Amino acid sequence: MSNSFGKLFRITTFGESHGPSIGVVIDGCPAGLEIDEAFIQSELGRRKPGQSKITTQRKEDDTCKILSGVFEGKSTGTPIALIIDNQDQRSKDYSHIENTFRPSHADYTYEAKYGVRDHRGGGRSSARETAARVAAGAIAKLLLRRAGVSIAAYVSQVGDIVAPHYSALDLAATENNIVRCPDEATATKMIALIDEVRLARDTVGGIVTGVIKNTPTGIGEPVFDKLHAELGKAMLSINAVKGFEYGSGFEGVKLRGSQHNDEFYKDGDRVRTRTNHSGGIQGGISNGEDIYFNVAFKPVATIMQEQQSVDKFGNDVTVSGKGRHDPCVVPRAVPIVESMAALVLADFLLRSKVSRL
Amino acid sequence: MSNSFGKLFRITTFGESHGPSIGVVIDGCPAGLEIDEAFIQSELGRRKPGQSKITTQRKEDDTCKILSGVFEGKSTGTPIALIIDNQDQRSKDYSHIENTFRPSHADYTYEAKYGVRDHRGGGRSSARETAARVAAGAIAKLLLRRAGVSIAAYVSQVGDIVAPHYSALDLAATENNIVRCPDEATATKMIALIDEVRLARDTVGGIVTGVIKNTPTGIGEPVFDKLHAELGKAMLSINAVKGFEYGSGFEGVKLRGSQHNDEFYKDGDRVRTRTNHSGGIQGGISNGEDIYFNVAFKPVATIMQEQQSVDKFGNDVTVSGKGRHDPCVVPRAVPIVESMAALVLADFLLRSKVSRL
Amino acid sequence: MSNSFGKLFRITTFGESHGPSIGVVIDGCPAGLEIDEAFIQSELGRRKPGQSKITTQRKEDDTCKILSGVFEGKSTGTPIALIIDNQDQRSKDYSHIENTFRPSHADYTYEAKYGVRDHRGGGRSSARETAARVAAGAIAKLLLRRAGVSIAAYVSQVGDIVAPHYSALDLAATENNIVRCPDEATATKMIALIDEVRLARDTVGGIVTGVIKNTPTGIGEPVFDKLHAELGKAMLSINAVKGFEYGSGFEGVKLRGSQHNDEFYKDGDRVRTRTNHSGGIQGGISNGEDIYFNVAFKPVATIMQEQQSVDKFGNDVTVSGKGRHDPCVVPRAVPIVESMAALVLADFLLRSKVSRL
Amino acid sequence: MSNSFGKLFRITTFGESHGPSIGVVIDGCPAGLEIDEAFIQSELGRRKPGQSKITTQRKEDDTCKILSGVFEGKSTGTPIALIIDNQDQRSKDYSHIENTFRPSHADYTYEAKYGVRDHRGGGRSSARETAARVAAGAIAKLLLRRAGVSIAAYVSQVGDIVAPHYSALDLAATENNIVRCPDEATATKMIALIDEVRLARDTVGGIVTGVIKNTPTGIGEPVFDKLHAELGKAMLSINAVKGFEYGSGFEGVKLRGSQHNDEFYKDGDRVRTRTNHSGGIQGGISNGEDIYFNVAFKPVATIMQEQQSVDKFGNDVTVSGKGRHDPCVVPRAVPIVESMAALVLADFLLRSKVSRL
Repeated sequence: MSNSFGKLFRITTFGESHGPSIGVVIDGCPAGLEIDEAFIQSELGRRKPGQSKITTQRKEDDTCKILSGVFEGKSTGTPIALIIDNQDQRSKDYSHIENTFRPSHADYTYEAKYGVRDHRGGGRSSARETAARVAAGAIAKLLLRRAGVSIAAYVSQVGDIVAPHYSALDLAATENNIVRCPDEATATKMIALIDEVRLARDTVGGIVTGVIKNTPTGIGEPVFDKLHAELGKAMLSINAVKGFEYGSGFEGVKLRGSQHNDEFYKDGDRVRTRTNHSGGIQGGISNGEDIYFNVAFKPVATIMQEQQSVDKFGNDVTVSGKGRHDPCVVPRAVPIVESMAALVLADFLLRSKVSRL
Repeated sequence: MSNSFGKLFRITTFGESHGPSIGVVIDGCPAGLEIDEAFIQSELGRRKPGQSKITTQRKEDDTCKILSGVFEGKSTGTPIALIIDNQDQRSKDYSHIENTFRPSHADYTYEAKYGVRDHRGGGRSSARETAARVAAGAIAKLLLRRAGVSIAAYVSQVGDIVAPHYSALDLAATENNIVRCPDEATATKMIALIDEVRLARDTVGGIVTGVIKNTPTGIGEPVFDKLHAELGKAMLSINAVKGFEYGSGFEGVKLRGSQHNDEFYKDGDRVRTRTNHSGGIQGGISNGEDIYFNVAFKPVATIMQEQQSVDKFGNDVTVSGKGRHDPCVVPRAVPIVESMAALVLADFLLRSKVSRL
Repeated sequence: MSNSFGKLFRITTFGESHGPSIGVVIDGCPAGLEIDEAFIQSELGRRKPGQSKITTQRKEDDTCKILSGVFEGKSTGTPIALIIDNQDQRSKDYSHIENTFRPSHADYTYEAKYGVRDHRGGGRSSARETAARVAAGAIAKLLLRRAGVSIAAYVSQVGDIVAPHYSALDLAATENNIVRCPDEATATKMIALIDEVRLARDTVGGIVTGVIKNTPTGIGEPVFDKLHAELGKAMLSINAVKGFEYGSGFEGVKLRGSQHNDEFYKDGDRVRTRTNHSGGIQGGISNGEDIYFNVAFKPVATIMQEQQSVDKFGNDVTVSGKGRHDPCVVPRAVPIVESMAALVLADFLLRSKVSRL
Repeated sequence: MSNSFGKLFRITTFGESHGPSIGVVIDGCPAGLEIDEAFIQSELGRRKPGQSKITTQRKEDDTCKILSGVFEGKSTGTPIALIIDNQDQRSKDYSHIENTFRPSHADYTYEAKYGVRDHRGGGRSSARETAARVAAGAIAKLLLRRAGVSIAAYVSQVGDIVAPHYSALDLAATENNIVRCPDEATATKMIALIDEVRLARDTVGGIVTGVIKNTPTGIGEPVFDKLHAELGKAMLSINAVKGFEYGSGFEGVKLRGSQHNDEFYKDGDRVRTRTNHSGGIQGGISNGEDIYFNVAFKPVATIMQEQQSVDKFGNDVTVSGKGRHDPCVVPRAVPIVESMAALVLADFLLRSKVSRL
């Protein structure tokens, strides 16, 4: 059950890092949506390894095949299965950790939970699983595009280097550099920091900011499935994420209500707010303003340094990263954050169809 | 659907602020659990209004009745329905806002979504709904207690007044003061700040920190239903919450992997970690260390000051809080945070029963 | 989880036969529906005990209170909680069976499953739970009425007395007699049989037939949630039901494809079928023709005769029905069958809103 | 959503008759189960087309590949994806029905629901989808085998030829003949009838009986998810099924309670019943006796004769079956019925782990 996400636009992912394939089944995509395969592939390209000098040098084409649910270019309402065959698996790179619990990885907890695990490349706990999310997210984006909703994410922080607030940025510039920060000056510093960390055989964390524009009012559900609660869950389900905030977030706790409240006014036919500390969501439901949020990623756990640990037999061991890894995950996390946001919004868009007579 | 939470230990809440009753149905509580009614009532007492000078002066007894699912003091495995009749409803206090959208409340978004709403006291969007969560959470705590798991929350920040890290505190002292901060010196400052804000007819935000001890290893599910992802959703579903972080959280992004990784060591029979930046969760699954997290609450939206807004007919209006409201929500949020954490843990505890043969 | 039914129009029932109350929470009723309380009450009246000489003589008013989700006569989109207080509970009537497993009741299986149970009147396994279904079903009927869908059930068989096919009957006449068979001649025989059985201190089974008219085309989902599969589950979940068939049903297996196939033709703008062996459903989806089905009820298990059994301690015991029971369940089952059908249709009606762009 | 089945042992199927592949993802199989691939393949072999002279002569190998969730021969607790590539697709056989609504097929209702459909071989509505169920069902059987539960189905009726009651049969003999009826004399007659029907270019219906032995007591859930209600839904979700009954079924309605009730007695340590009209289930929960049920299949809709119909443009058309089809579906339905029963039982077996402390 825990490998599914969404209620009406519902995805189920499967696959291990070093198995034959990973994939996703989308159940609930409405019939009649034009499925742009090139777009799915381009989204996967934004996530794929080996795309720049600051990402892992593993090479994977991540070619996506559609197995079902699409006929003559359109969704048919039946499940859309997407599959990506694994390539360039150097499983032997992992034989040294077969019985070892790598620090801050999921090796120990999977062993504790299941008593058996595919250790190769982290198996199911590998971030490779997120490729399936990006493929599904691309289809969610196609659905949202028809409703006028746009989703953009970018890198807003690497280590202690922070980009300006999103309202001061041109988000169309995000793809102009390899770190995916739309502010060139900040991007340059971020890239330098990641390079420095990489040479030190270390890793560093960062923040991805997401911005959703043109959400219709009334999207989201009250009480438990609040729009921001599902967004939060979606983001926290991404590997290496440690925190989520939206609107005024953690900084907002310092404000007074008189500073924080967003006054309403009439803008032509629309009801709008003069400020947007609410982050576009009130009571769990969209009010039509921009939805914006931050997602905190820890430094990648695999480092090229010796660390102390234990193995499954209880012996002390020394582990050191082998293989090819990212020194910083956030540049490749940008399309993943967008995809998870798209999946949440697509689901709520469908759910909103039954809110009233 | 959005009024239910949990997969195996599943609750459904109902009720509006000014309707006859609010309540909750728990479906999935295992049979044979001793249901301590006095404990449920004492938990509700920690949340109820009017409990101290820094909370709203509304008086509600919040007496909970058990309608089903308990026989001769024990759960029977059938749904446990709990009901709390509403009292001291001054519905007239709200007639002035019948058609008005209060800033940073859910009035506008509910209207946009449903086209009809019970405006009295916020109706379903009122934090009164959380009383039902606390009642259900008390039963989840009883279940967890049997498994040795303990959950404690406390106020760690009000405005810009910050308590020391949880590891330096005696969490047993939380109930010793009305602000529910176990550090007396900090508590005194927090209370003074809340009083000052209240006299200024304003409100202020804060942070509640939660700490879960003695979670068995292997609790939580991979991929989408990660333990921290469900905790995050649970917390973000509480009224006024703007952010969630666990373990190293947002601060962790500044660290290097070599600083952040938690090395494993053998402590007698147990595998433990020397540090706990992971916050007790790796790959979405508990590793047996303390689970700790922060929940950010915005300042309460109802302030005793004039604010500009619009009404549902598109007219400009001035609104000002009437009735009796909290100047700061975090002291009363402590049992709510604990309850939501308990509901998440109870659910995952049951889910873990089917992870392996 | 097993106390909920439906995906978008979702109900959760609670309560035991001899607890303080039974009830139901409806989550997912669209906002803006006029809630006719008198209609809910009249539906409960059709199910209530003591309504005629051929039903149990227990007296229960079954007065339904609305606790939430309705404001100024309309649904608000939030959960609708309905509660019925239990009355006239002669719990002492059941003290003799506290430890006894009544033949063909659920006493033994509940004990085996839960290790604890409320034995009074069957507790949760009592058909009293169906009153909550009827209350919720009344609201589902109100929703369906707006879509033009009508649902009618009647008694088509008692013991071996069989009514004519539904197409030969005037279903508006169902309420004209106490056995709820619209054919008066058959009804008279059925009533005589039930009376005879009652005097013999025995019970007898029967069949309820349901007919759903004016279902829009395209209602129902493919593969697992076929319209008839959910109808079947709904009916089989009613106490004492042993079988379900729709359209040509069990008799249809004897036909040839050339006899059974329903040829399409054009009737004005509509596509219709000349015959209706399909029972209005093809591939799990409605085709606009009448949906009709049969539900088989076993004879009531409680009889006023001595039977051999064992108790929970393993002793041989003799049991005999006390209290007040129905000699035949089908007359009171008619509104229950209709209610479950209405819940299925209402849910699929909402689900159909998201089938296509 | 409607392409998933089960709550804890949950499958999601995908794929169209003439797409590249069909498949299934199993989420919730406990870790540590030995996955016998040869067994999965042998189960698929029992369902595959072309296996005998009385089935369709289409040739499909139905070779199943495991894409995930199995490591070194054992389930790992992560999703098990199984895929079967489609072969021998003569899509051109279907070009004549691209716009035509075949009588008693799902062409019209899919068109009405989705506005678009893959017409080739029925697309998603084809019984080819059941191959995915059989593959998943094989794994459910492996899980049940460990719990001692056995499931056997057989053909008990073809047209009006009826086999003796299951208690008089040796179910181990089911595979001895091509019609899968363990009574040889009846099997001979059934085969002759199917042959006769086939030569008449017609089809005929039948009944498959399922028998589940050694179910532990306490399996199944009360109220809506009764064991027989889920079994009923599972069976009714199979293509061409028109009815389901268990235990005494439709015949039981004619009995008196004094005849129908199953008296309990003590058999060593076990509580047993002297008769088994209950069909092994009381109150929706297993009592340890045999669970037995009947599933009615209509005659296959595709016949080699001319039939009148309409096309999607509203024209009158004549259709006649081309391609290669089954004259009677029940011989190949036997493993499908078993698989669906296994999926239900496996799910409830897991659910029973959390019924009590």
